Amino acid sequence: MNTNICDKVNTNDVYENDRNHVIHSWSVQSKLNPLVVNEAKGCYFKDDKGKEYLDMAAQLVNQNIGHQHPKVVQAIKEQAEKLCYVVPSFATESRSSLAKLLSEVTPKGINHFFFTNGGSDANENAIKIARMATGKWKIISRYRSYHGSTYGAIAMTGDPRRPPVEPAMPGVVRVFDPYCYRCTFGKEHGKCNMECVKHIEETIMYENPDTVAAIIIEAVTGSNGIFIPPKEYFTELRALCDKYKILLIVDEVMSGFGRTGEWFGIDNFEVLPDIMTMAKGINSGYIPLGAVGLSDEVTKAIYDKNLFCGLTYSGHPVACAAAVATIKAYKEEKIIENAKLQGTLMTELLEEQIKKHKCIGNVRNIGLFGCIELVKNRNTKEPIVPWNGSGEVMDKVKKSLMDDGIYMYIRWNYIFIVPPCIINEEEMKKAFIAIDKALDIADGYVE
Amino acid sequence: MNTNICDKVNTNDVYENDRNHVIHSWSVQSKLNPLVVNEAKGCYFKDDKGKEYLDMAAQLVNQNIGHQHPKVVQAIKEQAEKLCYVVPSFATESRSSLAKLLSEVTPKGINHFFFTNGGSDANENAIKIARMATGKWKIISRYRSYHGSTYGAIAMTGDPRRPPVEPAMPGVVRVFDPYCYRCTFGKEHGKCNMECVKHIEETIMYENPDTVAAIIIEAVTGSNGIFIPPKEYFTELRALCDKYKILLIVDEVMSGFGRTGEWFGIDNFEVLPDIMTMAKGINSGYIPLGAVGLSDEVTKAIYDKNLFCGLTYSGHPVACAAAVATIKAYKEEKIIENAKLQGTLMTELLEEQIKKHKCIGNVRNIGLFGCIELVKNRNTKEPIVPWNGSGEVMDKVKKSLMDDGIYMYIRWNYIFIVPPCIINEEEMKKAFIAIDKALDIADGYVE
Ligand SMILES: Cc1ncc(COP(=O)(O)O)c(C=O)c1O
Ligand SMILES: Cc1ncc(COP(=O)(O)O)c(C=O)c1O
Repeated sequence: MNTNICDKVNTNDVYENDRNHVIHSWSVQSKLNPLVVNEAKGCYFKDDKGKEYLDMAAQLVNQNIGHQHPKVVQAIKEQAEKLCYVVPSFATESRSSLAKLLSEVTPKGINHFFFTNGGSDANENAIKIARMATGKWKIISRYRSYHGSTYGAIAMTGDPRRPPVEPAMPGVVRVFDPYCYRCTFGKEHGKCNMECVKHIEETIMYENPDTVAAIIIEAVTGSNGIFIPPKEYFTELRALCDKYKILLIVDEVMSGFGRTGEWFGIDNFEVLPDIMTMAKGINSGYIPLGAVGLSDEVTKAIYDKNLFCGLTYSGHPVACAAAVATIKAYKEEKIIENAKLQGTLMTELLEEQIKKHKCIGNVRNIGLFGCIELVKNRNTKEPIVPWNGSGEVMDKVKKSLMDDGIYMYIRWNYIFIVPPCIINEEEMKKAFIAIDKALDIADGYVE
Repeated sequence: MNTNICDKVNTNDVYENDRNHVIHSWSVQSKLNPLVVNEAKGCYFKDDKGKEYLDMAAQLVNQNIGHQHPKVVQAIKEQAEKLCYVVPSFATESRSSLAKLLSEVTPKGINHFFFTNGGSDANENAIKIARMATGKWKIISRYRSYHGSTYGAIAMTGDPRRPPVEPAMPGVVRVFDPYCYRCTFGKEHGKCNMECVKHIEETIMYENPDTVAAIIIEAVTGSNGIFIPPKEYFTELRALCDKYKILLIVDEVMSGFGRTGEWFGIDNFEVLPDIMTMAKGINSGYIPLGAVGLSDEVTKAIYDKNLFCGLTYSGHPVACAAAVATIKAYKEEKIIENAKLQGTLMTELLEEQIKKHKCIGNVRNIGLFGCIELVKNRNTKEPIVPWNGSGEVMDKVKKSLMDDGIYMYIRWNYIFIVPPCIINEEEMKKAFIAIDKALDIADGYVE
């Protein structure tokens, strides 16, 4: 075994060791053939053959600031040099600074923060805090949602990644989504009565409001298909929560930190959350970090109680230092403003595509949170691949994009357009040229 | 707001911002008065008044390599400079190297690794994998245990930190512990029939072996009081698992990476686990990281199935680079051998204390995993503070130690002795002088 930690490992070893010893997320291990990636910069990464890809997925929708931002890298190096770790019970500089900074950028009233390692455990702790603050225990969540993979977070997830690992945490009640393109209630937006909120009240009544601690929703739904609710959705949901003394937990893990062209997804609507959860964009994943933000009222409700939340790496100094640098860069380099601007361009580019390609059933975006939904038939809206599955057409679309050096997040019949928030017009247009070409292939699968 | 990320924040701000914006783990927020810590080195850290503490708790029993090890700091800086993040589905250098390295140091047969952010989610994923591999769903765990705070890990935890946040994941059945000093079965070791294992078989029979996926135990119990089982405990437990086709999951989060004077706690016994979970010492917490190690047989059982496990930061490049450097340092600097050596010294020093202080009911250690258990009365064994509580005496003990510059992990009637594995003889003796003095105070509380 090599004893110098800095030795260059050759890329054959990287692949070999991976295949011999690494278990990968969400996949069939025996079918894997992973790309070897050891280099990235801005909106691009490079594989071991030297091929460059434009990262239109921001990896897992977390590289909001792009790869290897020099100020964030510098902050990590400086904090590592100074202090890598202290117990969560001490106060330390980078965590204190981050908490202060978050209180400035999060919605009004959110001023206290509990830190975690990622999005799943942020949601886990949000449930615990909601239960402690209300003395109630049930949680309402939505079917087309993903809140993480640990047993509390996966219980709140509606997504079909949940049932295979159940039983998970009990007490979760699931409701339907503001998915206007395929309205569960058979309505059309503008001609509906907001049944997507109304049926939640019916659910609360039957579950008994005295048992319901919180409703958790993604501010804008992410990996289940980018659903941007109408403004009145949030207004009515907030009113329901107030009426029944239920906390509104907004999961901003994917929609936060510029993704929607605002600091947070919820900033696009005119309501305030009681609890919000964050991860990904908080430091663009440079070091694992998540956070739970609490309103002043929720803070008050738990302040004199013993908090049954904790983890070894809560408020990790290096992760917090990376987040401080990331948030400062978002501000100084007007990255969130850029996301909004490029989001407007994305809307235009998407409109062009839907006019050209009969395989597109629907397009939608808010800021740089975009999606193209493929169908076999525009009239029946039948998805181009079976529900919760894939198929030849999507494999070909993905291959065409990869061949053209465009890396995209594709799931089911959805093509997500979620680049780093630092993307420019030229890169956006370059991506859409490849998308256009890939959709020509998909058009061949339309009935 | 200050725009230079490297500006020195003054320590008043650190405290103020903490109190105004940070929520701390496992505590009553309104009662906190956190120490401000921004500096540490080796076995020591310093508060903002310049006072130095000998860290006899290795922070949260995770700084096995000590604070700010130069090679680990260097590895973090180099990896940050090279590549901070890629999606878990790619193969990347530091993760591949770490997986290879772990396969060399973990018990025979453990050759595949799924990476997480910490100990809780390592245990969460261990359950999922056990369920997928066996097709069964129940998990047997022990009462005096801590496996983490997320809803699957807290369900397996027996510790009283669980009930206040329940309902947690169902399907967990709890059994009793090999706590020889207070044997649940009223026996004495050497004169018993290993009822602590035998009653597990009775439990399995009534639960029905066809429903039980796994038994999870800490190799050596950590925060519930350092229980070192007799060798035959593991031999018999392994036999039970084999008989009923139940997987043995060993939680090495606290007992791993040199803590017990061996690489892993389980290495002190003559059995092999099916799944093992790791965190803390894996990179001493310099960057958040956890891992699940799988035996070849478990790997085979899941290899062709879709794995329903995943997290954004799985196999985080910077965390893995820190772990590679840490593990190499453990080897090159013979840190694990040192833990064994100092462990022998600890045994002697503990024997001296129990002879001197009537407040000590029992002492026990394996390597640098040690505990002093305080009682009101040696005959009745009544704990010096009520169960699951604290009291004036423990507060005074803690204060005396802190005044003498010795930081220790104290819980209930337990004083844990769990320093970094790099500690030397002089530091051990220095700590025991302060412990001796603190125990003089506790002697005054004996009836
Ligand atoms: C909305 C949402 N919540 C929670 C999570 C879970 O975050 P993590 O993977 O960091 O646990 C994700 C991850 O994709 C997410 O998109
Ligand atoms: C034995 C054991 N398992 C799991 C955990 C949970 O680890 P984490 O705090 O990193 O989630 C701990 C933490 O103290 C532990 O001691």
